[in-house]
Amino acid sequence: MKDFDIDGITDAVIAQMATTPDPRMREIMDAAVRHLHAFAREVNLAPDEWLKGIAFLTAVGQACTPYRQEFILLSDTLGLSRLVNVMHDAKGREAAGTETSLLGPFFREDAPTIGLGESIARHAEGPELLLYGQVVDAAGQPVPGAVVDIWQTDADGLYDLQANDPSVMDMRARLTCDAEGRYHLRTLRPIGYSIPMDGPVGEMVRRQGRHGFRPAHIHLLVAAPGFRELVTALYLGDDPHVDSDTVFGVSKSLVVTPAEGLPDAPVQGVPAIRYDFTLSRDVGEGAGRVGSDPSRLVPAG
Amino acid sequence: MKDFDIDGITDAVIAQMATTPDPRMREIMDAAVRHLHAFAREVNLAPDEWLKGIAFLTAVGQACTPYRQEFILLSDTLGLSRLVNVMHDAKGREAAGTETSLLGPFFREDAPTIGLGESIARHAEGPELLLYGQVVDAAGQPVPGAVVDIWQTDADGLYDLQANDPSVMDMRARLTCDAEGRYHLRTLRPIGYSIPMDGPVGEMVRRQGRHGFRPAHIHLLVAAPGFRELVTALYLGDDPHVDSDTVFGVSKSLVVTPAEGLPDAPVQGVPAIRYDFTLSRDVGEGAGRVGSDPSRLVPAG
Repeated sequence: MKDFDIDGITDAVIAQMATTPDPRMREIMDAAVRHLHAFAREVNLAPDEWLKGIAFLTAVGQACTPYRQEFILLSDTLGLSRLVNVMHDAKGREAAGTETSLLGPFFREDAPTIGLGESIARHAEGPELLLYGQVVDAAGQPVPGAVVDIWQTDADGLYDLQANDPSVMDMRARLTCDAEGRYHLRTLRPIGYSIPMDGPVGEMVRRQGRHGFRPAHIHLLVAAPGFRELVTALYLGDDPHVDSDTVFGVSKSLVVTPAEGLPDAPVQGVPAIRYDFTLSRDVGEGAGRVGSDPSRLVPAG
Repeated sequence: MKDFDIDGITDAVIAQMATTPDPRMREIMDAAVRHLHAFAREVNLAPDEWLKGIAFLTAVGQACTPYRQEFILLSDTLGLSRLVNVMHDAKGREAAGTETSLLGPFFREDAPTIGLGESIARHAEGPELLLYGQVVDAAGQPVPGAVVDIWQTDADGLYDLQANDPSVMDMRARLTCDAEGRYHLRTLRPIGYSIPMDGPVGEMVRRQGRHGFRPAHIHLLVAAPGFRELVTALYLGDDPHVDSDTVFGVSKSLVVTPAEGLPDAPVQGVPAIRYDFTLSRDVGEGAGRVGSDPSRLVPAG
């Protein structure tokens, strides 16, 4: 029997995990243990600090419901989600391809279907906005029949999942582009909003002196056969937090500004955003969804 | 606005957290983010792998109850608890002081009080064992009136917290040493047991091809005014898993073997373990409890 010193314990754990049959699981867990231990050694983590960490992670897990994903929010606020997103982008997004962004914790499967030109606002009210454009491939050729999922907050900065009755869907929809890959839809102008501050992640962000806001944005997921699924978002350039997003989701190329009088807008008299999405060919790198429908992780009882 | 590459995102997170007023919190979170990101970069974590991790941590949090602490179990099985334990030991345990071990997830506050010589088994049955000895300081001088908490499995390898009615306490007690620091008590011979395998941590351990067993042991917490609280455990040397503990808790100096006919045993005819505990002076390094009463982290509703 060998007694452990503070380095030996790491070797002992990795040795005990060496029986893991799945090589990728072994690789990931080895690295996780090495970095976890290196972190604890670097800060000389004391027992009472360790216990605070256990209590925090427990609270994060207990805050998760079919309508709320607090662990994704934690990953988002620590920049891990964006890092995974950027690494995925580096594996197979074509140079011309639209940059991706986080799926986040408010995506839902099975959003209602709308027709071209219809509004995603079923109950919510507020200043209208037109969103239109074309889905093309890296060579600029139209992608006919691409499917667009769109979701965002209402004009009060809340997602349907955060409403009194989160089972009611609103401010989200799915629509199919026409034969030239063109789409247009109506929505409400989103506003910047605070991440949920009533849980353990909000408490962390508050204790870090961070403002907790995300700049106003519209989430989009664009899919077509043969192409890599595009998970992205458009950010409003005039939002005061566009440079200090709490979840680090903004890229320059995804910043937009609504304008009136765009000559090719299919509807006039409404502030409009034209954005063309360029899909990259599928190179078998798997889905790029950095986020999830919360009900997929904590199913309703 | 700056677009992030895979290193720049880490700097951006640390810059945003720089407003943290508490310097120790800032130090710990900076290191946590750096090591978390370094882990993700090292394994080039893919979105679907990230999501598996989110789902796993969510399941761990959701498995926690006032009677079960799955996050402590995760920390234990990844060797983090033992590392924190060893680092704490290095900060102020005197050379002669008894080595410490993990408090673990089965400790409970407010165990029933027993008198010297009484048994900690209230309902459980099995082969009896006598445990006795003396609590001394590093100079070998008795510590009068030291208080000993003891807890262990029953002879089936289960803690009271794992029984049908976990609100009933059994196989745990608190007793006060006499004026010479002497203690003796009766218990049942513990047997090695599997960590709880019906939750996400058990699933992880199974998928790693690990046996999941802990060698038979008795937990102890020894406290006296002016001394650092001693959190330790005694391990039975003839257990087949004494060299491959799933939570890395065993130290050579804590391995014991029950024997009959020890001349100074206060009771004869019962297999006995004599173990003297040497307390270190309190040097203000805080509590060494690497573990917790689960009800302190998830209070009953």
